[in-house]
Amino acid sequence: MSELSEVADTLEARARTACAIVREAGAVALAAFRDHGSLSVETKGTQDWVTNVDLEVEALIRARLGAAYPGDAIVGEETAQDPEGGNTAWVIDPVDGTTCFMLGLPQWCVVLSYTVDAVPVVSAIYAPVTDELFHATAGGGAFLNGRPIRVSDAASIGDGLIAVGANAQGDPHKSAAFIGDLVSDGGMYIRVGACALALCYVASGRLLAAYEPRVMPWDDLAGMLLVREAGGRTNAFAPSLVCEAKRPVLVAAPGIWEAVAPLY
Amino acid sequence: MSELSEVADTLEARARTACAIVREAGAVALAAFRDHGSLSVETKGTQDWVTNVDLEVEALIRARLGAAYPGDAIVGEETAQDPEGGNTAWVIDPVDGTTCFMLGLPQWCVVLSYTVDAVPVVSAIYAPVTDELFHATAGGGAFLNGRPIRVSDAASIGDGLIAVGANAQGDPHKSAAFIGDLVSDGGMYIRVGACALALCYVASGRLLAAYEPRVMPWDDLAGMLLVREAGGRTNAFAPSLVCEAKRPVLVAAPGIWEAVAPLY
Repeated sequence: MSELSEVADTLEARARTACAIVREAGAVALAAFRDHGSLSVETKGTQDWVTNVDLEVEALIRARLGAAYPGDAIVGEETAQDPEGGNTAWVIDPVDGTTCFMLGLPQWCVVLSYTVDAVPVVSAIYAPVTDELFHATAGGGAFLNGRPIRVSDAASIGDGLIAVGANAQGDPHKSAAFIGDLVSDGGMYIRVGACALALCYVASGRLLAAYEPRVMPWDDLAGMLLVREAGGRTNAFAPSLVCEAKRPVLVAAPGIWEAVAPLY
Repeated sequence: MSELSEVADTLEARARTACAIVREAGAVALAAFRDHGSLSVETKGTQDWVTNVDLEVEALIRARLGAAYPGDAIVGEETAQDPEGGNTAWVIDPVDGTTCFMLGLPQWCVVLSYTVDAVPVVSAIYAPVTDELFHATAGGGAFLNGRPIRVSDAASIGDGLIAVGANAQGDPHKSAAFIGDLVSDGGMYIRVGACALALCYVASGRLLAAYEPRVMPWDDLAGMLLVREAGGRTNAFAPSLVCEAKRPVLVAAPGIWEAVAPLY
């Protein structure tokens, strides 16, 4: 077996593991979502909350990864990075779209990726309410519930929807001005409320593009690999998993990239 | 039996009929949504499309209403108003959120209301992907899958999300400026992509408020009754079902109304 096919086999095995873990984690989170009274919520900052479910689901994913790949480093949104880790690690967002989750809105997902030197090579993103599992491996393509997906072949902003996020610490008037101009010019925005899920929607051709002004690696790396493997364009990956500064993420179908590039 | 209880009985019977019809219609639309290849789409205008499913579902609802209430007038988005109708009529939006529906996004719904002198007295709104049936009767309360719902008791825009729409013909820069200020001030916007569903989310306390700048009666009447019956505030109903001009709709939890009133 060549070295290349060995790597590919390894990625496929890791993808299968990642898919199984996010499915299990998503089922746990979905049960809590439907039993809304059991939720406890704490405020992390402006429009930023954490629930007991975020913490429980991250612990579950860490336990499953620890059993499957005992030597691997893990970076998670809710608990600290493995101090031995570096940039080759599993990266977890236990519930992306926590605000939607706690409010009872369906658009949230469980996010897991595996990165080598801070480059994502395996992604699994599961949206429990719609039972949609998106996954990708570097060079192996992007899939929704096992079927290959592609970005839109649209060439005009008038052909669909663009997800535009904004953040109080990230020049919200820039996002707002883009929205005003986009709609004036015959386009339309949407805000999904879960960054990784918006990226999945671009990868599967449902949205033309997606932008968030301030994200961390667990918000964007998994979806960025998915979009690239589905034929789309993205900005560069973060140089490090441990970088503290939030960055923008921008992904788009190739024919839409120039129209949204000013956002980045 | 008093006249009042007779009216209430009549409304409850109409609500049961409306709920059964939107459930059946939603199941038909959902089958088409999942068999995406069968969809045919025509452009009505900028960011405005109609699919074969809109037409088929409206025909189904008209047939069921015609059988249940043969004498009643019907107003529907996709086919003309009953010329005999006036303002006492059933009002149909077969697929609210057609853009989401045709793109494969889950946020769309089937909308049916019954109005007396242009005032909605029965509402049924069904979101098939999440299997959520919202309904209300005038004076009888608002319900999600049979359980009573209430608007949020929040008093601050920082407590949740506000749905903000925009339209190329409706001063999109006004919506955009509101979004920029909202986020700067510690709030957060979302755009659901289906007006009636956004109103349902306000009625059920998931969103703090919702605004769309240009709607027709089939977009807003059903959800406005739902919000009012759930304890929320709304702008006035359209004076007539046959008014040709699109109008804004604004609904909110009572503690949020003042913060969003400038949108109207």
